[in-house]
Amino acid sequence: MKNKFYAYIENLQDQITSKLEAIDGLASFEEDIWKREEGGGGRTRVIENGAIFEKGGVNISAVHGKLPETLQENLGVSDADFFACGLSLVLHPKNPFVPTVHANWRYFEMYDKAGNIVSQWFGGGQDLTPYYLFEEDARHFHTVCKSACDKYHPEFHQKFKETCDTYFWNLHRKEARGIGGLFFDYLKETDEFSMDDRFNFVTEVGNSFLDSYVPIVEKRKEISFIKSNKDWQEVRRGRYVEFNLVHDRGTLFGLKTNGRIESILMSLPPIVQWKYKHQPKENSEEAKLLKVLAKPKDWV
Amino acid sequence: MKNKFYAYIENLQDQITSKLEAIDGLASFEEDIWKREEGGGGRTRVIENGAIFEKGGVNISAVHGKLPETLQENLGVSDADFFACGLSLVLHPKNPFVPTVHANWRYFEMYDKAGNIVSQWFGGGQDLTPYYLFEEDARHFHTVCKSACDKYHPEFHQKFKETCDTYFWNLHRKEARGIGGLFFDYLKETDEFSMDDRFNFVTEVGNSFLDSYVPIVEKRKEISFIKSNKDWQEVRRGRYVEFNLVHDRGTLFGLKTNGRIESILMSLPPIVQWKYKHQPKENSEEAKLLKVLAKPKDWV
Repeated sequence: MKNKFYAYIENLQDQITSKLEAIDGLASFEEDIWKREEGGGGRTRVIENGAIFEKGGVNISAVHGKLPETLQENLGVSDADFFACGLSLVLHPKNPFVPTVHANWRYFEMYDKAGNIVSQWFGGGQDLTPYYLFEEDARHFHTVCKSACDKYHPEFHQKFKETCDTYFWNLHRKEARGIGGLFFDYLKETDEFSMDDRFNFVTEVGNSFLDSYVPIVEKRKEISFIKSNKDWQEVRRGRYVEFNLVHDRGTLFGLKTNGRIESILMSLPPIVQWKYKHQPKENSEEAKLLKVLAKPKDWV
Repeated sequence: MKNKFYAYIENLQDQITSKLEAIDGLASFEEDIWKREEGGGGRTRVIENGAIFEKGGVNISAVHGKLPETLQENLGVSDADFFACGLSLVLHPKNPFVPTVHANWRYFEMYDKAGNIVSQWFGGGQDLTPYYLFEEDARHFHTVCKSACDKYHPEFHQKFKETCDTYFWNLHRKEARGIGGLFFDYLKETDEFSMDDRFNFVTEVGNSFLDSYVPIVEKRKEISFIKSNKDWQEVRRGRYVEFNLVHDRGTLFGLKTNGRIESILMSLPPIVQWKYKHQPKENSEEAKLLKVLAKPKDWV
């Protein structure tokens, strides 16, 4: 399974980066192959200063070795060996009318002393962070997510949509990071689902990514914007930074376990502002976004 | 003691903000008086878009009530009442040749069920974060810190200087946040020192703040700079954000215990950049700074 999933994310990284380069037209991804001292490594691809993408990364990694202590506690095990691989992406568009997007699909294995798999699961999801709300874009994104889910179980979409809203809640700001999408974790073998079923589901979601996001980029990329729109985007990017550095388990796990810092922090936006007590004008487009972020809603 | 120290920080806030306004000449501090639902409140003063200070805050607060759960664990007590007051300041200058500065002086009391003080202590310090290193500025800052310490104990400076270097270590970047200063905590009553001695020491440090920082501002504020200097400052400010949101106990405590978010996060810089794998040119002024941040040194 680990080879099958790694081959999948390798291929998906190629598909996604070549499509994004074609859309951007100006910048291309810079590739870094890196090794992890304790075992494994990754292939990081970062794009900067594009016509469409101001900054973004589409990274894969496969790491293995002794389970780091911080993770032992989380998983309720003492020392064990593990393998983990996944694809992580974040795209920060230049145009404030094009939303930021994040996605991650991953696979995890744990072993006993003899090297037998004692536990294995998939996790991941994808979520959208607009700076200006186009309801039809939100509906489109969630509709694609729902279609991928519905092929596997009628309850998956509602469940993973709600998990996403819960996870990407910027607690100290009492607001959502964005308008959500899907988030799932610990998708293990059950009576109902084999690991192959899990693989098929997760790859179905991964395959839906370009369909969920690219049409939105195409539709909004030509909208003209002024400095106040850009300022608003940069202030909102501050909330993105706050979520990733204060609350995001994946980021903190990486930072505290000697992960490759530049690959982890490619998720941080290129230019960010923090203004004291910034508040948009009542009934403005900016205020409309905040209203939606204050209380996650169903889009489909 | 709590009234005496609160009166001190109220007065110090006035002194510091009026001096900084006089230096800035353009912007003035905006004041917000706020109340904490669970008890107490504060007086936040923020300056933005000044001639010298691009953003900064000089805040005092005095809060009391039931000790929040997160702090119970840290302090090794179960439910108790507490009182805490302090002054916190961060200044982000516009000119990249003027360093950012942070300071905090605070007092804490804990009570038993009958309302008797069971524990009380002072904490705080001040530290400097330059974007370009002027060795004489680093020496000046540390010399003022040392003078304040030396009046109270010959070992205070070395000890609190080292505690500062340890505390402001940006672990995931393997570098210091800045060039240090002083950091001390849990300054309690001992055989050697009464609480009045502790008060005298902490206020001595507080009184030294303007002397430690203002001469550096005066000396560097007119240096002309170009876009690449400003870019470097904004990239380095990213590390400041990373430290504050990932590692700073005070910030995380505030964020996780329903503190006044806008007062806590006034510490975040106004404009910040994250570039992938940013590295200054060898032997440049920027590289010289990184070398010093990689390994804290003694300045006096």
